[in-house]
Amino acid sequence: MLHAVIMAGGSGTRFWPESRGTRPKQLLKLVGERSMIQSTVDRLADLVPPERVVIVTGAGLLDEIWNQLPQLPSESLIGEPCRRDTAPCIGLAALEIVARDPQGIMAVMPSDHVIEPAGAFREAIAAAAKLVEQAPQRIVTFGIRPTYAAESFGYIERGEALPGGPLKLTSATTTAYHVRQFREKPKADVARQYLEAGTFYWNSGIFVWKASTILAALEERQPEMIAHLKTIAAARGSSNYAAVFAREFVAIKGISIDYAVMEHARDVVVVEAPFAWDDVGSWQAIARLEGADAEGNTVSARHLGLRTAGTIVRGPDDHLIVTLGVTDCIVVHTPDATLVANKHDEEAIRELVKLMAERGWQEYL
Amino acid sequence: MLHAVIMAGGSGTRFWPESRGTRPKQLLKLVGERSMIQSTVDRLADLVPPERVVIVTGAGLLDEIWNQLPQLPSESLIGEPCRRDTAPCIGLAALEIVARDPQGIMAVMPSDHVIEPAGAFREAIAAAAKLVEQAPQRIVTFGIRPTYAAESFGYIERGEALPGGPLKLTSATTTAYHVRQFREKPKADVARQYLEAGTFYWNSGIFVWKASTILAALEERQPEMIAHLKTIAAARGSSNYAAVFAREFVAIKGISIDYAVMEHARDVVVVEAPFAWDDVGSWQAIARLEGADAEGNTVSARHLGLRTAGTIVRGPDDHLIVTLGVTDCIVVHTPDATLVANKHDEEAIRELVKLMAERGWQEYL
Repeated sequence: MLHAVIMAGGSGTRFWPESRGTRPKQLLKLVGERSMIQSTVDRLADLVPPERVVIVTGAGLLDEIWNQLPQLPSESLIGEPCRRDTAPCIGLAALEIVARDPQGIMAVMPSDHVIEPAGAFREAIAAAAKLVEQAPQRIVTFGIRPTYAAESFGYIERGEALPGGPLKLTSATTTAYHVRQFREKPKADVARQYLEAGTFYWNSGIFVWKASTILAALEERQPEMIAHLKTIAAARGSSNYAAVFAREFVAIKGISIDYAVMEHARDVVVVEAPFAWDDVGSWQAIARLEGADAEGNTVSARHLGLRTAGTIVRGPDDHLIVTLGVTDCIVVHTPDATLVANKHDEEAIRELVKLMAERGWQEYL
Repeated sequence: MLHAVIMAGGSGTRFWPESRGTRPKQLLKLVGERSMIQSTVDRLADLVPPERVVIVTGAGLLDEIWNQLPQLPSESLIGEPCRRDTAPCIGLAALEIVARDPQGIMAVMPSDHVIEPAGAFREAIAAAAKLVEQAPQRIVTFGIRPTYAAESFGYIERGEALPGGPLKLTSATTTAYHVRQFREKPKADVARQYLEAGTFYWNSGIFVWKASTILAALEERQPEMIAHLKTIAAARGSSNYAAVFAREFVAIKGISIDYAVMEHARDVVVVEAPFAWDDVGSWQAIARLEGADAEGNTVSARHLGLRTAGTIVRGPDDHLIVTLGVTDCIVVHTPDATLVANKHDEEAIRELVKLMAERGWQEYL
C-alpha cells in the first residue's frame, strides 16, 4: 500500500516575522486560505487517506499541526526532540510504516512547497509507486525542469530513459530516467552549465520507495543511526517513549538522506515532474505565486498605497498599512513585529533573525 | 499684566499615523518627553503662570489637554465647536483677557513649535511686552531669520529699526524694526529673492499686543465677527454657554488674524527672534531636531536595522520594527496603523489622510 511521509521540520526563518520558532513556514497561510502543511495533506486526497499519512516534525509543533489537521489519527504524528537532518527523520517514518505494512511503499515529501495541479501530482506519485512495484529496490525521485540557473537547489543529472517509453498520465505525459548523479547546490557558473545542458533537474525533495528498501540502505550505510532509531520505534506506545526518544535521538549524528543514501544507491530513477512546483523560498515567491496588481504590488493586508510599486504588503485585516513612494519593498506586519525590507536584500532576513537571537530577543524568534 | 494665549486648534495631518483627529500634533511627544503643548506651557514658566494662560482649541480636545496640563484652571480652556481660523480664536481669547484684566497684554503663540532656549524666549516676550507698554496701540511680531528659501511660511519684511537701539537681553542682543509689509507664502523664485534680500523674516505666528488693541482692530475691520464673539463671551459661565457658543461661532466667517488685522495695522513691529525656532512641519523635522546616528537614522522605537540609512523609525517600545536595505524612509508604527513612506514624498501624507477620509475610514483619522 502507498503511504505518505510529510517532513515538517523546517524553521523557515526567511518568512520572519510571520514565521517564528513555534509557527514555522509550513504552518503559515502563505498562499491561499490553507497553511502549507494543510495544502500538502489536502493534495494527497484519496490517493493517501489520513490514516496512511505520517508527519515528522519538531516535538514543539505537534499540537499546532494537530490543530490544523484534526482529521489525522494521533499515531500519524512523530515529534522529534531535536533536529538531526532528513535521514533520521525518514528512517523513523520508515520504521513506523513497516510496522504497519511490511511491504508498504512510502512517498516522502516536504510540507512547505506549492504544487499544482493536485491531480497531476497524485497521478505522478501513483506512477512512481508503480515503478517501485516493478523493481522493489528502486528509488524514485522527482526532478523539476530548471527555469533559471538557481544556486539554491540541489540538482539531479538524468541518464538514459527507462525502457517502456514515456509514462502516460491522464493529465500529461512524462518520462522516467535513470539517475546519472546527484549534485549539490552549485555556484552560479556551474548552475548555468546545468541549465544549458538540458539534462539536469532541480531536486524536488520528493521520493518514492519501499519503506523496507530505505531501511536496508540505512542499515548498510548508517548502522549506528538505525540502531538508535529501532530503539525509539520499539518504545513507541510505551510510557517511557518520550524519554527513550530524547535519549536516543540526540545521540544520532545528523545527516541528510541525500548524503546518507541517495548518492550511493544503485537503482535510482528520476521522473520529470508533470506538475508546477515552487519551494516558496522567500517573500518574493509570494508575489510570483499570488500574482500582482497593475502596479506590481502583491497585497494581503488592509492597505492604502500611493506611488507604491513592486511591493509585497502583508498583515492582518485589522491593522492599516500605508505605503507612500515605495518601490520593490516587502512590508510584513504582525502583532508584535513589523518588517520593512528592500526586496533585493531579502536573503539577509536570516541574518536579522540571527542578530535577534544574539541579542536574546527570544520573544521575536 | 502679561497673559499668554496658546492657539491649539491645529490638526497636524502631516504626522499621521501618530496624529489623529483626537490626538493632533500639539498633543504628541514628537521631540523629547513632553508633548508640544506641554512644552509650550513649560516654556512660559514664571513669566506667565498657569492662571494667566488661555488655551483655545477644538472642543473635542479639551479633556485630553486638561489631562496633559492639570495645573491649568478650567477657565483657561476655550473649546471651539468648529474651526474658524485664527482671528475668531484670538478675538475670543482677547475678550476673556480684557474681562479679567482690562489693560492686559497678551502674547499669542502656536502650541506646536519648538523654541530653544526657553530663557531667551521669555526674555524676548518680556521685551516685546515692554515695547507694547511704550506704545499701547502697537503690535509686536517675532520674525525668524530664514535659513533657506522656504515656500511654506509667510514672510515679514522689515523697515527701519526702532529708535533706541538694539534690545539688550541677558542671553542675547536683538533688534526691533518697523514692519514694511507682510507677505503670503511665496513661490520658490520669490522665496529666493526674500532670502537674498536679507530684510525678510519668516512669520513665527507669535504676537504680543494689548488685548484691547486687537479687539479694537477687530471691531473696526470685522464688526460682525466681534458681535458674535461678544455674545459668546457674555454667555461664559452660564448654563447655555455651549449652545450659544455653537450657534454664534458657526455663524462667523473664518479668517486669519493676518488678513483680518495685521496687514491693515499701523504700528507693527518685528523683533528678530533671539531664539532657535522650528515649526516641526513634518516627520523630517524630527530628524533635524533629534539628530541622527552614524548611519543618519533617527530612531525612537524598538528597532533593528541592517543596511538602513537616513531613515526615521518611530513606534512604541513593545513593538519591534526591523528595517533592511532601506534608505531615506519614514517608518511610523502605531497600534492600529503603520506608515512606510519615502522621505521625499512626505508632503503627500496629507493626501493619504484625505484618501482615508474619502473611503470613510474614520477609525484611522
